[in-house]
Amino acid sequence: MGKESERKHAVIMVGLPARGKTYIASKVCRYLKWKGFPSKIFNTGRYRQDLDTELARKHDFFTSTVPDVANIRKKMIDQVLEDMVEWLKTEQARVGIYDATSITRERRKTVYELLSKEGFRVFFIESVCEDESIIQANIEQVKLTLPDYAHMDKQTAAEDFKKRLAAYEDVYEEIDLDHEGEYSFLRMIDVNRQIVCNKVNGYMQTGIVYLLMNVHIVPRTIYFSRHGESQFNVAGRIGGNSGLSPRGLQYAKALKTYMGEIKPENLEVWTSTMLRTIMTAEHFTECKREWRCLEEIDAGTCDGLTYEEIQEKFPDEFANRDEDKFNYRYPRGESYKDIITRLEPVLMELERAHNVLLVSHQAVLRCLLSYYLDIPPEELPYVKVPLHTLLKLTPTAYGCNVEQIPLKIDAVVTHRPPSQKAAEKAETAMKVRDEDAIEPTNI
Amino acid sequence: MGKESERKHAVIMVGLPARGKTYIASKVCRYLKWKGFPSKIFNTGRYRQDLDTELARKHDFFTSTVPDVANIRKKMIDQVLEDMVEWLKTEQARVGIYDATSITRERRKTVYELLSKEGFRVFFIESVCEDESIIQANIEQVKLTLPDYAHMDKQTAAEDFKKRLAAYEDVYEEIDLDHEGEYSFLRMIDVNRQIVCNKVNGYMQTGIVYLLMNVHIVPRTIYFSRHGESQFNVAGRIGGNSGLSPRGLQYAKALKTYMGEIKPENLEVWTSTMLRTIMTAEHFTECKREWRCLEEIDAGTCDGLTYEEIQEKFPDEFANRDEDKFNYRYPRGESYKDIITRLEPVLMELERAHNVLLVSHQAVLRCLLSYYLDIPPEELPYVKVPLHTLLKLTPTAYGCNVEQIPLKIDAVVTHRPPSQKAAEKAETAMKVRDEDAIEPTNI
Repeated sequence: MGKESERKHAVIMVGLPARGKTYIASKVCRYLKWKGFPSKIFNTGRYRQDLDTELARKHDFFTSTVPDVANIRKKMIDQVLEDMVEWLKTEQARVGIYDATSITRERRKTVYELLSKEGFRVFFIESVCEDESIIQANIEQVKLTLPDYAHMDKQTAAEDFKKRLAAYEDVYEEIDLDHEGEYSFLRMIDVNRQIVCNKVNGYMQTGIVYLLMNVHIVPRTIYFSRHGESQFNVAGRIGGNSGLSPRGLQYAKALKTYMGEIKPENLEVWTSTMLRTIMTAEHFTECKREWRCLEEIDAGTCDGLTYEEIQEKFPDEFANRDEDKFNYRYPRGESYKDIITRLEPVLMELERAHNVLLVSHQAVLRCLLSYYLDIPPEELPYVKVPLHTLLKLTPTAYGCNVEQIPLKIDAVVTHRPPSQKAAEKAETAMKVRDEDAIEPTNI
Repeated sequence: MGKESERKHAVIMVGLPARGKTYIASKVCRYLKWKGFPSKIFNTGRYRQDLDTELARKHDFFTSTVPDVANIRKKMIDQVLEDMVEWLKTEQARVGIYDATSITRERRKTVYELLSKEGFRVFFIESVCEDESIIQANIEQVKLTLPDYAHMDKQTAAEDFKKRLAAYEDVYEEIDLDHEGEYSFLRMIDVNRQIVCNKVNGYMQTGIVYLLMNVHIVPRTIYFSRHGESQFNVAGRIGGNSGLSPRGLQYAKALKTYMGEIKPENLEVWTSTMLRTIMTAEHFTECKREWRCLEEIDAGTCDGLTYEEIQEKFPDEFANRDEDKFNYRYPRGESYKDIITRLEPVLMELERAHNVLLVSHQAVLRCLLSYYLDIPPEELPYVKVPLHTLLKLTPTAYGCNVEQIPLKIDAVVTHRPPSQKAAEKAETAMKVRDEDAIEPTNI
């Protein structure tokens, strides 16, 4: 897509505190990274905590009109923006997300002009809540757990927070078509009950809007499971379309028993079109759906071989795969990266869905987990997804919790550890990831 | 997706004449049919032409307050709606699109209540134009070619049409959040410069919105080409990843020469990741993009065989494929239906793109052509896409024109005619399609 495909994007969050800006920013950031676009959130809250001065800790830090405080504040939010610009100028960077309030028209103008001048495409995302219950839930789940409120009882903290909010409300100007019709923007009212798009163009912006049209905040649980142990697993062969081993059949029963005890509401059961996942879900009478795009990685010419046979027959291929497992594509087959591309429709359905049990395969679940747990490409192909173990994913305010539930039926181990080189790479990635960790708030 | 996946949908177009309602309706209808959801447009214009009475031919038929005319009109638009309801109640039907003006709040209420009562999900799509040039272009390209205006000069006809328009403008009430906030709707202002979504939910509605966010009306041309003749083509083998034959190499040169003479502005060249398409595009210096999802149909265990070998080795498979070629999936491979699923991202990029030369494969081009030319699944696997022939697609008001440009370099013929049974099926489908043909207007 020529220039368009290399264009850098700046996403600017807009809205009062407790409107889910950081939730939206995290969602967008994880999604874009998953799709292969290096993205990063620049959150004022984090910088504030780094300031760590007596002034910065003051409750009215973000609203105070005391010149000293206002000065530090101004310097700080400009610093965040400046850091984003610096980062976006680095070669790999694609999307910077500025997670501040940007609630005045003047501020948006400043930000827009500064970023446009740098050649970045600017996209505002404003979150508005007319539904008081959404704001209330956000305050209770996120804001009151801030260090600021550690010493207060819940009631006092809530009142204090609402006082802060009121100060913001006084100066808030919503994005306004008459004055700001030139900007590309997305306004979300009560998550996505109502959505207004203005001048939304191109792959990146329309992709973000499509994602956000599909998200919801109704609590739910997603269960991932690999198929039960297959005959090929036992034989140490990859690929194929074999049925379950006797132990695999036992797992299919155990899975049904376990889920039958929890009884998630309106559970849907998704499988791939491969025999081993269909057999694993055979005892479920719930609404079922078979997805071809949930099939295991296509090993191309290596399909049906053991790792030893691959090493013997295609020694170079084997070495290449170890070198860069994420991008490595089996001859006439697929790479992990290819799987992510074909998983997009499943991901969108998962965002829209309520409770789901998804029975798929090792490589596919690694790719899906990398979205929910924000795992970088280097580590993704080594994520442990053991057989006969249920993964319970619970979406949280800015990410997702995962719990491993082994159903205690023996199975072969199919996990291959990374080569020395790959392990080193992954370790570096881990370090970078820690630095990027998102702080929970920007107020 | 349980009930949701079986839900029936009614899409109600809203807007003044010459606002592109039929353009949008056709686009949505073609897209949904392509995705496998039987959809049909119910257009008042067509019924009007069927009426063919002196009264109905009157210029003021749609606005007249003369009781006789108003009566016929009312009966007619109700008949259209009734027919849609009847059709939606048939087993296969999924999405009915009501292409009338529905410009009063009262009318929308009537329509909404009637359709909701039937259990259909109602989705309004309103098209508003603030940009006079879009309206003007629509009037010139579509409305003035109506039979009504056959006897008038352009100037008089345009004036007459504007008079009709004025009568509509007097009664038009835009969809209004305060009064109609309960409805699921999409408002499009100047195509998609600005978009408002209210209560858009679920796969079908979000899918429609995503499509419409990506369309544009800038004139452009799309060129499709198969790769040049490959070594496997010459050997009569399917699949594989062979390079070009000497004649294939000649075609690659001829293609570059031909396109070099036309010089489409900002041309992008898309290929699959297979050797034969990459070699076909090798002389192009334009912006290139390789798509894995443009790869040829995966013939699974039949890959690399000749049709004779398949018939010999897998006689049942061969017969099954002839029986229902669209849904037939090669063992461990793909069906035409599977290709459509993986083509979705390409289609969206094509909607967004300007001039594109897309070099791909027989089965993939058949699937893409079926979208642009509204070809039903039964016929799709038999569409002729000869080697060494450029297909020039020019989007028009309600569809797409296609021109075959043979570059006059010999090549083997790879087209296999349908079996007797398949041919009969396709013929029936053809008949149904003729009945469904969209008339160009509803005014």
